[in-house]
Amino acid sequence: MNTIEPVVSSPRKPPEENGASQQRAADWENPRVASILSAAAKCFARKGFTATTLAEIGKELGLRKSIVHYYFASKAALIHEVQSFTYHRYLDRLKEATQNGDGSTSQAMEALKALWEAIQNNKTGTGLNIEVWSAARRDPELKRRAAGLQRDARQVIREAMGPAAAKGGVNRSEALATLSLAVLNGLSVTEYLEGDEMRAREAYETFLQLLRLGLESSSAPS
Amino acid sequence: MNTIEPVVSSPRKPPEENGASQQRAADWENPRVASILSAAAKCFARKGFTATTLAEIGKELGLRKSIVHYYFASKAALIHEVQSFTYHRYLDRLKEATQNGDGSTSQAMEALKALWEAIQNNKTGTGLNIEVWSAARRDPELKRRAAGLQRDARQVIREAMGPAAAKGGVNRSEALATLSLAVLNGLSVTEYLEGDEMRAREAYETFLQLLRLGLESSSAPS
Repeated sequence: MNTIEPVVSSPRKPPEENGASQQRAADWENPRVASILSAAAKCFARKGFTATTLAEIGKELGLRKSIVHYYFASKAALIHEVQSFTYHRYLDRLKEATQNGDGSTSQAMEALKALWEAIQNNKTGTGLNIEVWSAARRDPELKRRAAGLQRDARQVIREAMGPAAAKGGVNRSEALATLSLAVLNGLSVTEYLEGDEMRAREAYETFLQLLRLGLESSSAPS
Repeated sequence: MNTIEPVVSSPRKPPEENGASQQRAADWENPRVASILSAAAKCFARKGFTATTLAEIGKELGLRKSIVHYYFASKAALIHEVQSFTYHRYLDRLKEATQNGDGSTSQAMEALKALWEAIQNNKTGTGLNIEVWSAARRDPELKRRAAGLQRDARQVIREAMGPAAAKGGVNRSEALATLSLAVLNGLSVTEYLEGDEMRAREAYETFLQLLRLGLESSSAPS
């Protein structure tokens, strides 16, 4: 089974406003685009962003650099697309689980647990996130896009937490979603630095227990 | 008021075993060492690791490169020391608050809140963390040291959480400490990417509420 497939169910959003430095919008359902993203993810994970060239990514697939360049105007554009592709793969699954669920807190916990498992199965994802965060320090456009991905992720997580999270008001459900995403990011870093999957998993399960307690407590702070 | 001062109260630990590539152990109480670390932190935050040279760090202080090199054998060694210096500054404060406290959950929450404020006051710290995580991908020694810092931080946090965390057993207090550190790291990333201090702060306060609920719930999972 191929681990990177275009499972994007919704059409791409149009490029955002203010798109002076925007590349062509990548079409993830185009098999060639998907194969370039997959090869790029491998190269980035292996060597980091700095040491990877568009030519090498092409070489992985037997494609000329000019073909890669046709789809992605720059390495920065490709970096963003790889991260965005990976994020949306997870988020689409989470969305699907939410839509098919009963809106209960238990089901929300199951969905968030499944999200963790999905992230765990992609060991290159954390390295990619860290590379993006680092590159964003020197590339405002990349930073803006990475921030956009965080917002997309939070929205899906907020919906996944269901009516229980909304009970405490918009601010509280927003804070819980921000917290949940930060826990996912932070524990990925823990696991990446220490290589201790069990530690990260136990901490995540503890978080879900706390989150459940919080969602079930009727005394939601205003 | 100088923002970076050597406030290290305990003597440096001796260099760890397996020190083939170890540099001289930096003495944080030496004013020159402290000034180099402070200048390095500024340069790294401004330009990133890659673009910063030992010569430039020396120039900030009117020192020759050879002097910087006398104290720090390499840029990687300096990077680690800067991060370590910053971490231990926070951790020593947290330790102090814990030792002077009454061991109550309220006091633990106050200490964890103070830790957040201290981190917030050092805007270059997150950038530095991200640079270290990124550089650790290509430098196993740096990764090992960054993992060591995470362990040190967890231990101090576990102690700060006091007897309430220990009630659920070693595994639970360890999981809570791992989670707390991940929340600090994850929310730093949120704030760094989105520049939204209020969002990160509200999520952290929500975390402390959940943590308190968890610590106070008698039904601590085994």
